[in-house]
Amino acid sequence: MSPPILSALLAPASVAVIGGSDRQGSVGEVVVENILAGGFAGTVFLINPRPLSVPGTTWVAQIADLPQPPDLAIVVVPAAAAPGAIAELGAAGVRVAVILSAGLTEANGLRQAVLDAARPHGLRLVGPNGLGLLAPHARLNASFARGTPLAGGLALISQSGALISGLVDWATTRQLGFSGIVSVGDMADIDLADLIDLFAADPRTDAILLYIEGVTRGARFMAAAQAAARLKPVIALKAGRNPASGRAVRSHTGALAGAYDVHACAFERAGIVQVESLTDLFDAAAVLRGGPELQGELQGERLAIVTNGGGAGILALDAMTAGTGVLADLSPQTLEQLSSALPAGWSHGNPVDLIGDAPVERYRAALDAVLADDGVDAVLVMNCPTALLDPRDIAQGVAAAVVAARGRGILKPVIACWLGDTNQDIAGPILSAAGIAMFGAPDTAIRGFGHLIAAHKAAARLSAPPAASEPRQDRPSAARALIATARAEGRSLLNEIEAKALLDAFGVSTVPTRLAATPAEVSAVCAGLAPPYAVKIVSPQIVHKSDVGGVVLNLPDAQAAVEAAEAIAARVATACPGAVITGFAVQTMVAPGRAHEVIVGLAPDPTFGPVLMVGAGGKAVEVIRDHALGLPPLNGAAALAMLARTRISRLLAGYRDEPAADIAGIVATLEALSAIATELPEVLELDINPLRVDAHGVMALDARVVISLDPAPASRLVLPA
Amino acid sequence: MSPPILSALLAPASVAVIGGSDRQGSVGEVVVENILAGGFAGTVFLINPRPLSVPGTTWVAQIADLPQPPDLAIVVVPAAAAPGAIAELGAAGVRVAVILSAGLTEANGLRQAVLDAARPHGLRLVGPNGLGLLAPHARLNASFARGTPLAGGLALISQSGALISGLVDWATTRQLGFSGIVSVGDMADIDLADLIDLFAADPRTDAILLYIEGVTRGARFMAAAQAAARLKPVIALKAGRNPASGRAVRSHTGALAGAYDVHACAFERAGIVQVESLTDLFDAAAVLRGGPELQGELQGERLAIVTNGGGAGILALDAMTAGTGVLADLSPQTLEQLSSALPAGWSHGNPVDLIGDAPVERYRAALDAVLADDGVDAVLVMNCPTALLDPRDIAQGVAAAVVAARGRGILKPVIACWLGDTNQDIAGPILSAAGIAMFGAPDTAIRGFGHLIAAHKAAARLSAPPAASEPRQDRPSAARALIATARAEGRSLLNEIEAKALLDAFGVSTVPTRLAATPAEVSAVCAGLAPPYAVKIVSPQIVHKSDVGGVVLNLPDAQAAVEAAEAIAARVATACPGAVITGFAVQTMVAPGRAHEVIVGLAPDPTFGPVLMVGAGGKAVEVIRDHALGLPPLNGAAALAMLARTRISRLLAGYRDEPAADIAGIVATLEALSAIATELPEVLELDINPLRVDAHGVMALDARVVISLDPAPASRLVLPA
Repeated sequence: MSPPILSALLAPASVAVIGGSDRQGSVGEVVVENILAGGFAGTVFLINPRPLSVPGTTWVAQIADLPQPPDLAIVVVPAAAAPGAIAELGAAGVRVAVILSAGLTEANGLRQAVLDAARPHGLRLVGPNGLGLLAPHARLNASFARGTPLAGGLALISQSGALISGLVDWATTRQLGFSGIVSVGDMADIDLADLIDLFAADPRTDAILLYIEGVTRGARFMAAAQAAARLKPVIALKAGRNPASGRAVRSHTGALAGAYDVHACAFERAGIVQVESLTDLFDAAAVLRGGPELQGELQGERLAIVTNGGGAGILALDAMTAGTGVLADLSPQTLEQLSSALPAGWSHGNPVDLIGDAPVERYRAALDAVLADDGVDAVLVMNCPTALLDPRDIAQGVAAAVVAARGRGILKPVIACWLGDTNQDIAGPILSAAGIAMFGAPDTAIRGFGHLIAAHKAAARLSAPPAASEPRQDRPSAARALIATARAEGRSLLNEIEAKALLDAFGVSTVPTRLAATPAEVSAVCAGLAPPYAVKIVSPQIVHKSDVGGVVLNLPDAQAAVEAAEAIAARVATACPGAVITGFAVQTMVAPGRAHEVIVGLAPDPTFGPVLMVGAGGKAVEVIRDHALGLPPLNGAAALAMLARTRISRLLAGYRDEPAADIAGIVATLEALSAIATELPEVLELDINPLRVDAHGVMALDARVVISLDPAPASRLVLPA
Repeated sequence: MSPPILSALLAPASVAVIGGSDRQGSVGEVVVENILAGGFAGTVFLINPRPLSVPGTTWVAQIADLPQPPDLAIVVVPAAAAPGAIAELGAAGVRVAVILSAGLTEANGLRQAVLDAARPHGLRLVGPNGLGLLAPHARLNASFARGTPLAGGLALISQSGALISGLVDWATTRQLGFSGIVSVGDMADIDLADLIDLFAADPRTDAILLYIEGVTRGARFMAAAQAAARLKPVIALKAGRNPASGRAVRSHTGALAGAYDVHACAFERAGIVQVESLTDLFDAAAVLRGGPELQGELQGERLAIVTNGGGAGILALDAMTAGTGVLADLSPQTLEQLSSALPAGWSHGNPVDLIGDAPVERYRAALDAVLADDGVDAVLVMNCPTALLDPRDIAQGVAAAVVAARGRGILKPVIACWLGDTNQDIAGPILSAAGIAMFGAPDTAIRGFGHLIAAHKAAARLSAPPAASEPRQDRPSAARALIATARAEGRSLLNEIEAKALLDAFGVSTVPTRLAATPAEVSAVCAGLAPPYAVKIVSPQIVHKSDVGGVVLNLPDAQAAVEAAEAIAARVATACPGAVITGFAVQTMVAPGRAHEVIVGLAPDPTFGPVLMVGAGGKAVEVIRDHALGLPPLNGAAALAMLARTRISRLLAGYRDEPAADIAGIVATLEALSAIATELPEVLELDINPLRVDAHGVMALDARVVISLDPAPASRLVLPA
């Protein structure tokens, strides 16, 4: 968005409230009241056909009567009047309007009507159906939010208006201030991406907080978020982790890749720090908003804990899980230094227990020692209050020690946990000034450290984005021929033979498989394959073959294979009477032996495009639910990181006398699917299940591919590198 | 403990501080200062050889000079002086002393010395090395805690003194008061169980909160906790979830059954509500302290959510996981009732979104409707503040609606979430008076509901404790003969043949297995078994046979089995040169087919005695880490509940065309191990891994049994029914 829009929203010199009112308790009155109560210094126009005399405002009967176009318009008229008001504002030369009015829907046409009214004039819209806009540096509260936020460095962009007052309240308690708060409403025009761009460019904004229910324009959002995240922390809470019901999908990958998980995956790629609750949103802001200059720079996850209460140290350790740090091993030199500074009863390890009566000198000595240790990446300093010592003194000593360390070039982040609300309130401001974020309980402090780690990882990802493998132009051409055939026949589901040929074209090894049109033909097909055999039904109507008795394994010879095909035909005739039988896929049976069954897949997300999946496969895939998602394009390192997030990766790594499985083969398969996703937009869904994996290699035993019948499938989301 | 001790601790008429001081900042001075500042109305004796003149206290030079025995003595003298002081206090007729002094250890003998000094007089001791005792109803703060707690219904028993001040601070912020706070210190005499007994009998105590680092006297603790939990909620936070390192154990079951998990399992059996953080400790207290009269009675987990903010409702739903409720399905009648009371734009389902501008009437109508719905067990009512309405009005209306429903006999619990600290502070007291616990964020509110569910389940367990199967006297005798043989040979590890025979005696079916003393003998042994064969090393020194190449599977005939035994002998000679080879176990090889591999085991816990385990088995058991624990004795229902907590139980239940496995067989195996645990104290550890399970039955393919060589093994913990 252009700079005029940024300044119109965050630093307007004049505001007009269209539909402003003096009727007690109406939205028009509450908004005007909030603007006046907030102390906005600019001109406030109140536009209402009825003459009004509200001190501090200038009444105007209609938009056309305004003496000059206001920098910002707030629209609170009834829905039906909104398009007319927008047209008049546009004609008057207004650049930005915030529509609070509800009831402008696609169904009643009013949503489109306001867009149509605004477009000829280049008028940009926030809303409709939002709570409004708050720009604390301009002392502007153009909303019906309750409470007045402090001015500060946080930008809040929320898809829920109702949450805003609560968030302002929490932030105020934590002494956190805002550069701007925008309730985006229905996002008819200005959306999350626009506002991320705006706050990324705003020099007063230190961090961007997002409450998201659903992203629109996925590629645009990703570009905006990636650009912003290179400049300042972008922290998001995504609602809908517990979807009432899944989407209608035909593939395992689609069924397993829920919208929340795909958003999480996209956020990770974009360098966004994702949190799981409203409380975490602010905790993350508290540890991240200062940036490296103030809060230090994390280089790893090794945490030293300095505490005057053993129990508090243990509880912090208890709260540490994957992604929230590992306990640092202190060097022998550090231990020696600590032993000389601390009483004999100290813990002689990490957590460093200074004993309950620890005065400030002990804290300083311990901080000096652990901050200097090369095996320590960050420090959590804890205080359990006692009547013996003043928590203020301890806080001052800790702040001084950290500032002194910064002066010596030690930029390791330090976070604090002062137990109890009073203790925290006393010490918080002292520590905050030294760039030390404060928490009131061991578990929240460790979650706070987790946000620091997440931000560190996000920054690392942005500085080294995965690149796709080199495109090989011969692959798509071979695959496109297969797809053309299926399309010509109006089939969106490739049969098993075609699906395996497509994989073959992308270098994924598949088990030899041939098609027999009838049970009788099975015998001839077996002649070209090594026994034992597996026989599976091939029918455009049958997606999950096992469920209808359409698979028979372990057939020792051709005769048994023929009989199995006959039995399958009989069962399918009963179970799916309408199914057209293309034939029977006959393949060499690969004994499971000690092999692992893995699933690798590709499915479309309506917002972010194709999504890759890897996890534990086999028939029980949806019962086991052990998988990880990733967005294409990805390289080997990103594919390996995806695999590492699954439980089955621990088995694949080998254990006891079991050798490691061919992990490189799984990675190569994921890279092949990434190539298919980027090079063949016709492929909508693809499941390889199972991918048989042992120490010697990988082999796709079964595959399902769904293609688009659209002659020109929408071009894919291409993620910015 | 006898009532005099209860009243001495919680309502003493006089207190003597042995080592009380006026030296600024000393423990002796801070404790006296706290007692005086708290407003204690009784007599305060200050015992110090040096004459002291502290207003509000009576100075006495030595204990023998006390005019009468004080009800309570607080000992703050240096460690070395403590045994003498205790002896004098006992001689003077004091019944209870709280020792704050640190440094009385087993190593320096002072811990035993104070016990020896107290015992002849029947003097009971709290501590040493504690923070002290607070009895707010007596306005007594005999501690060096910071801050003064409110008087109320919570008892806090803490193994960490350092945490107490923080906990008092939190509770005060939440307007929660205490009946008593005891820092138990090193628990030389009075321990957790004693204090649980005390507060269970205290009529002022509504709920007992425990911070536990480690339980002593497991059986005694269980009895006290079970008895207390029948009377009032017992809520525990156990530290040490993240152990730095495991204990040295020889069995899989032992390695997998960590101390934290065993405590959790014992707490569950005892009816204790376990929480995972300090914050949760108070959140649980807030939802549980009122009891059913005030807070309603939960009958199930189905939650209705009533909110004026859609986003807040979604975030509450997002926070719901296993154990924190399920979303209630509202009846058609309820939906109709809501539709007639709410504006057209309401959510038409659960969560019930009243829309942001909802006045109190909408809240009342919605509460009336959902509280009357038979498909609803509890209600979460949420308020997102806006400038349009006063949160106080909403709170009053909600409280009135709930009180009115109680009057109609509807006892369903209601919890509240008013977003933001200010909003929460305004509404909290109004709702609290109506028995509605208040939370400030959707995720904490749902965790609060989870505590209510946990308490409901704990109460259900206490009212129907698992009974052991009927003992069968023939079983132990057969097994004891085997054990006697091994003991006679000084072997604590039964060999595979013996282990299977023991299982056989308890009705667990095992794969036919015979012992060949040498590779040559293998051939003769094979003659009595059906091929194919498995051959395994039998040696007292070799526990994990696969790790040393001691297992060969899938041997088609006797000759192959002989060769395999020779190869094993060669490998073992290299890998374990000192191992004594008892021989080779030869068994019919059972093809894995579609069978599941399960582990069932028994291991000793130093505190709680034998622990049972079930989970995913096989060679990868310690990599997969999917298991659940239980304490014997257990019946079929308890065994089934244990199994249901594992991930593998979802596979065992059957899926797609896979039939359910023989779950009854696994349950029977767990019951057999429970019988072994209760009837054969000689058996210390037992692993069945794998237990082969398919649709047709279960069979133990391998078993390891470790027995005690102690001629009279300690009798087992017998859990009270």
